[in-house]
Amino acid sequence: MAVTMMIPALADLRAGNDDWEVFVRSSLTVFTIASLVFMATREATAIFSARLGFFLTVCLWLTACLLGMLPLYFSGLPIGFAQSLFESVSAVTSTGATVLTGLDDMPQGILLWRSLLCWIGGIGFIALALLLLPSLRVGGIRLFHMESSEKSEKILPRVNQIANALMIAYLGLTLVCALCYFFAGMSLFDAVNHAMSTIATTGFSTHDASFGYFADKPAVVFFATVFMVLSALPFIVYATAFIPGQKKRLGDQQIRLFIFLCVVCSTILALWLSLTRDIPFSSALLKASFHFTSVISTTSFSIEDYSQWGAFAVGIFFLACFCGGCAGSTSGGIKMNRLIILWRLVKTSMTRLASPNTVVRPRYAGTEISDDFARTVLLFVWLFLFIMIVGAALLMMTGLDLATAFSCALTTTANVGSGFGSPVGSAGNFAAINTSALYIMSFLMLAGRLEIITVLILFMPSFWRR
Amino acid sequence: MAVTMMIPALADLRAGNDDWEVFVRSSLTVFTIASLVFMATREATAIFSARLGFFLTVCLWLTACLLGMLPLYFSGLPIGFAQSLFESVSAVTSTGATVLTGLDDMPQGILLWRSLLCWIGGIGFIALALLLLPSLRVGGIRLFHMESSEKSEKILPRVNQIANALMIAYLGLTLVCALCYFFAGMSLFDAVNHAMSTIATTGFSTHDASFGYFADKPAVVFFATVFMVLSALPFIVYATAFIPGQKKRLGDQQIRLFIFLCVVCSTILALWLSLTRDIPFSSALLKASFHFTSVISTTSFSIEDYSQWGAFAVGIFFLACFCGGCAGSTSGGIKMNRLIILWRLVKTSMTRLASPNTVVRPRYAGTEISDDFARTVLLFVWLFLFIMIVGAALLMMTGLDLATAFSCALTTTANVGSGFGSPVGSAGNFAAINTSALYIMSFLMLAGRLEIITVLILFMPSFWRR
Repeated sequence: MAVTMMIPALADLRAGNDDWEVFVRSSLTVFTIASLVFMATREATAIFSARLGFFLTVCLWLTACLLGMLPLYFSGLPIGFAQSLFESVSAVTSTGATVLTGLDDMPQGILLWRSLLCWIGGIGFIALALLLLPSLRVGGIRLFHMESSEKSEKILPRVNQIANALMIAYLGLTLVCALCYFFAGMSLFDAVNHAMSTIATTGFSTHDASFGYFADKPAVVFFATVFMVLSALPFIVYATAFIPGQKKRLGDQQIRLFIFLCVVCSTILALWLSLTRDIPFSSALLKASFHFTSVISTTSFSIEDYSQWGAFAVGIFFLACFCGGCAGSTSGGIKMNRLIILWRLVKTSMTRLASPNTVVRPRYAGTEISDDFARTVLLFVWLFLFIMIVGAALLMMTGLDLATAFSCALTTTANVGSGFGSPVGSAGNFAAINTSALYIMSFLMLAGRLEIITVLILFMPSFWRR
Repeated sequence: MAVTMMIPALADLRAGNDDWEVFVRSSLTVFTIASLVFMATREATAIFSARLGFFLTVCLWLTACLLGMLPLYFSGLPIGFAQSLFESVSAVTSTGATVLTGLDDMPQGILLWRSLLCWIGGIGFIALALLLLPSLRVGGIRLFHMESSEKSEKILPRVNQIANALMIAYLGLTLVCALCYFFAGMSLFDAVNHAMSTIATTGFSTHDASFGYFADKPAVVFFATVFMVLSALPFIVYATAFIPGQKKRLGDQQIRLFIFLCVVCSTILALWLSLTRDIPFSSALLKASFHFTSVISTTSFSIEDYSQWGAFAVGIFFLACFCGGCAGSTSGGIKMNRLIILWRLVKTSMTRLASPNTVVRPRYAGTEISDDFARTVLLFVWLFLFIMIVGAALLMMTGLDLATAFSCALTTTANVGSGFGSPVGSAGNFAAINTSALYIMSFLMLAGRLEIITVLILFMPSFWRR
């Protein structure tokens, strides 16, 4: 992070903004802290346990959020502590909800820092979902069975190899996206920022109007749609392209379901739009597919406020918020693989209730779903809805009305980034929200990103008991 | 039902309303249908299976709703088919949402019929929860272990005994409630109607202002609060008083939790009210406890629109809507026993994730929670939230805004009967809602009442496959 902070510093220095000093000072602070921690723990060896895994994951993300807010808080932006924290958490968790207005006139350093922060958060989450969460049995994608008989010498090179391939794929996809944006008509600065924001499925823009600024450039909108879909697919798909002989264990069903939902719902929305608004089907399809993929991939870019598309459309967007993209991508929400597993579990349970003597075992991606795994999926979905509902109640208590509170709780827990209707709709932002609500939502974003269980488990007294 | 319909007929005849003919004709229709079905199936013997149990339960409830709407539809009320069905479903499922206005001037027969319908629905649900649902492994309270070795001759008398005791308890409690209301200052007609509505935790009133009509009679409000709490407790508690030697297996924990929530939340709300509104604590406590027990027992009587009490209060009411009363009572929602079991399951799963080697088995009411039972509870809660969210999305598609749609979906799925804010808030009603939305909500009320799984299982293709 200390190194990354030098990038906006250079950008500001070149543009002649005074903010470069803030970034250099923040960078030095981060470097000092990191060095001290490194030196203090160099000699120590920790025995890895599930408990330590949960604790370190949350600490790591919290630290990233707190350090990431330094440049925002100390720059000349007219925002307070709660706002800076919210913005930083929103970036690191790839949510994309913003409290900032006047983005078009903002110093380039700040804009670049928001994009970099979400980009780092995105690759961090992919690594977490592939390399750590499965061994904590919380979620993510299990790539290789870590048999207890297998020696760690055999596994570690594979982990390194995959981590490298992931990095290359992530960087490569971002570059290709930036190039596409650039050739479709964006400025270089806009292209780079929006590419990072797209691949991380965040939704931060460099313009208050988001993609409304590029509404007259259909190619930009088209590429955004394509790359939002690509960013919501499991990144291991791209990474395995660099590893010869690595057997694919992706659970292709979730990719199929995701593409299916995107195609069907975009078409329905496009038909609805072209019929109710009297616009040609082709431009309706472009707009509808852009907005639908933006919501289901939890990106939250927008061309216009889709809350105005009518009740039918809003109902579809509402459900899409819960879904999210595929496991192993940068997107949030419940995710496709869980939805499939959930549906199979429900079906099996129902069949078992109707015909108690039938023996049915639900399967996913070629293997039987174990009781342990089934329990974790049900637990996750239940906790997701639980913290969303309790979050909405708490937000109401801070003074938000039911619609705004529910909208905010859903959009932050699912890491989408925009809600329904004013003030937090896809054409709005979170600048008008009170600070207590911002803290609650910062928590919801972090919990949502870390697959909820990882965060809530720290609140169990039994976690801390020896 | 044919017999019951003669009661409002007599009331209308005495009061000189022409509606008595409608009731007599409805009664004859019901009697004819029932006789035909009885004669057609007299000779047939059915082998009981889980499948038949689910099918018959849903059929029975659907039939009750459809027959119950006859007098409403054919009387001179200015409502259509969808409205009549909604009102009837709302009564039979003890929800209490109404599309009728001008209750104060309505013929006594109609008012009495609504009350009778919900009263019958209430005892029907208690019987279902105690006698049928446990053997379908869906929910309810398991009273006695039906060992496969036990002879049915030994169980049947016990079932009859319990059913009779339940009837007596239910009738007794209603009579005592009516007497209390009468002596506290209600007219005899009001007392009888409100007593039936209270004990069935429905919330139908004979006045548009609901208990606002009795706001100057604190004793009435006090008794309503007491009897709403009593109606949300498991009725087997009262029934066992009539059966000597019947061992109690109630899971007293759920009663304790329910009373605890009522006391704590009412006190908090009273403090909030007296501080923000500058009214004496005693009258604030009366009002707060009345409204809180009204929502958590899923009754939905109201004195005033509590949506106006401020955001903090609304947040509490919002959460109370989900909770509901105890299993084995007439109230709806997720219910206390499930909340306790859910919490224990979550705790156990979390502990297992944090310390994979720990062996913890969650317990409830003195016995270990079996995996099968745990799965059903998680399935129920998940389906509850699922149909509520999908219901809200569908309601939005009919044209309701987010707040109203969500409010309607929650209040009907949980069988509460009043939502938040206009038009469906505690001071409003469902008269202004479009007919498509009324059909959706009728389905949600029925599904909510029959513990969701019972209804949804009929939609599984595997249910119909041999």
